[in-house]
Formats: sequence, C-alpha cells, structure tokens
Amino acid sequence: MSIQQSKQGRGRPITTDPAEVGLNALRLFSEQGIDRVTMEQVAAAAGISRSNLFRVFPSKAAVVWGGMHNFTAELAKQLETGEASTVVQLLHRSWVDAMQMADNSLETVRLRLKIIGSSPEVYGWGQGQLDQARLVLENAVIRFGGDALRAKAVSAAMLSASVAILIWWAETDDPRTPSEVLDDGFSDFESLFG
Amino acid sequence: MSIQQSKQGRGRPITTDPAEVGLNALRLFSEQGIDRVTMEQVAAAAGISRSNLFRVFPSKAAVVWGGMHNFTAELAKQLETGEASTVVQLLHRSWVDAMQMADNSLETVRLRLKIIGSSPEVYGWGQGQLDQARLVLENAVIRFGGDALRAKAVSAAMLSASVAILIWWAETDDPRTPSEVLDDGFSDFESLFG
Repeated sequence: MSIQQSKQGRGRPITTDPAEVGLNALRLFSEQGIDRVTMEQVAAAAGISRSNLFRVFPSKAAVVWGGMHNFTAELAKQLETGEASTVVQLLHRSWVDAMQMADNSLETVRLRLKIIGSSPEVYGWGQGQLDQARLVLENAVIRFGGDALRAKAVSAAMLSASVAILIWWAETDDPRTPSEVLDDGFSDFESLFG
Repeated sequence: MSIQQSKQGRGRPITTDPAEVGLNALRLFSEQGIDRVTMEQVAAAAGISRSNLFRVFPSKAAVVWGGMHNFTAELAKQLETGEASTVVQLLHRSWVDAMQMADNSLETVRLRLKIIGSSPEVYGWGQGQLDQARLVLENAVIRFGGDALRAKAVSAAMLSASVAILIWWAETDDPRTPSEVLDDGFSDFESLFG
C-alpha cells in the first residue's frame, strides 16, 4: 500500500492511505448510489480535507477505475516476458497473472466491478483505460505474428469477455479470487473451440 | 425498402424513402462531422420537412444505429432455427447469415460503422441495441447447455469481436461484404484455438 504524504503543514506529514480512502468511497457509492454521493461526502467520511482527497482521487471515476492503470502496466510486462507456445496461451496466462494483483484487495475489486456493472455511464468512464489495455493486447498479438484484423478481433473479444466474467464474479459474490475465476472462465471459453 | 406515407395533407401522400434519407444523412455526418450537423440540416438536404424526418428518424442516434434492430431480430431467428453441432458453429453461422441483410446497402453500413468507430459517444448511443443483441446471444448459449457465466463471456466476446471486425472493415474500405469479412474473421479467430 502506498502512502500519500503531504509536504505542506508544519513538518507533521498528513498521511492518507489511498487504498483505505478508496475502499471507504466505494462503500459509500455502493450503499447510497454513486450518483447521490459527492466527493465532499467522500472526504468527510474519510476524515480528510477536500484538497487532500483530490490529490489521491481527482474524481469519482478515479475511485472506481483507479486500479486499472496498474493492471494494464502489469499485463504489458507479463505479455512481454511470458513464455507460451500459442497466442491464446500467452494472453490467457498473462491476463491471469496480472490479475493476481487484485487478489489482495478483494472487497475493493468486487465493489468496483459491481458499480461498473450497474451503470453504463460509470462503465463509460473507463473507456480510455480499457482502450489502453486493448492496445497492449493488440501489440502482443501482432508480435506473435497476427495481422491487424486478428489483433483487433482477439483483443476486443478478450477484453469484453474478461469484463463480463469479472462483473459476473462481483455480482454473484462468487467465492473464488478474480484471477481464479478468470482462469476458469478463459479455460471454459477455450474448451468450446476444442 | 419500406415507404413512409403521411396521411396528412390533401390526399396527396408525401413519400420519404427511409433508406435514402438515412444515407443522405450519413453522408452529411461523414463529410461535416456528426457533431456539426443538425437534424434541420438533414431534413433540408433530403428536401423534406422536419416533422416528416422525425417520423422516420427521431434522432441522429436513430440514423446511425437504425439498422441494428432488424439485424438483432434476424439474428434471433437464425439462432432459433439454425442447425449446428457446436455452439461456436451456431453463433458463427447465425451471425454471418443475419449480416447478409447488410450486403444490399454497403455504403450505408460502411458509413454507419465509420461514424460509430470514430466517436466513443456515438458508439455509446448504441448501448441499448448492443445489449439486445448480447441477450439474444446469451439465450442461445444457454439453450445449447451453457451456464450463465459461459453465456456472458461468449456473448460479450462475440459481440465485441464482431464490432471490431466490422469497424476495421469500414475504416480500411476492405472490398469484401460485411458478411464475408465477418465469416473470415470468425474463422481466423477459431483457428487460433485449434
């Protein structure tokens, strides 16, 4: 967990743990409806000032989609360093391995996905982040010898299937971890073509 | 092509061919940017009144996404009546067969997809229509013995891959018909798992 330290004030650092602030915010969104909660209320619930909150989370979108950037960076690393004999295997393993990051913050991930799944608008806030992940997948397919059309089709399919699997996981309170349910979901998907 | 007939006026029916009005509108959107074109300009370009236009196309979204409803109805029919030994085969064949409707109006389909592909906002206008198609696919997977998770993963993957393939087709001015490029794209996708 990273710690946000303010350099302002009289030498006494103000610390706000982004993970904790984020989880509190997600609980508020989930209980009261994300449309009805203001960032002022999030700050008040966390006992921090509005400006300290905005240093960590500049928007509700940043609270909900906050984990995606790190996930995509990890995914890119796995896709570059992973060994696999087929592109399907490479994408499957890399995605599952990158997703293991989320296994340490189950409640946060589950609340994020429930909120994303409950509102097309909130889903839309993540478009830029999803596009980043899609590009990372497309590049991997092309490095593996695929053409542009294959890269686009496979990456779009994988991204959408993953989001569908994860939202299903969140909504059903499935007891597996996100990486386990993705691993099982991808394997089931692949078995259909066998 | 269906004909919109106004019952108003002095017994002389005002006819506006929706296909022609729609194509004119799409050309305007494509040339000038969809944000800059008003529905008044669309009506003027088609030489019809604003109220006649709104009877055929109540919004820009209806112009761009107008063909999707008929496609989804045809897809549902194909999925219900089609014979196949695997669910992948059923989805593949049904989607391609339903898409053949579009082969008669290539310019319209290409312009629609170019415009959808060029703007996340316009893409978002089709969310409800895409959700309908997704449900139709999910029901077919479940009828074929799949559970809810499989249905969601496969349907999301197929829908996104199809949109990616079709937008690629539109943007590259690929000479094949939409149904041909989908058929080839699905086959390529399936070959990756073989």
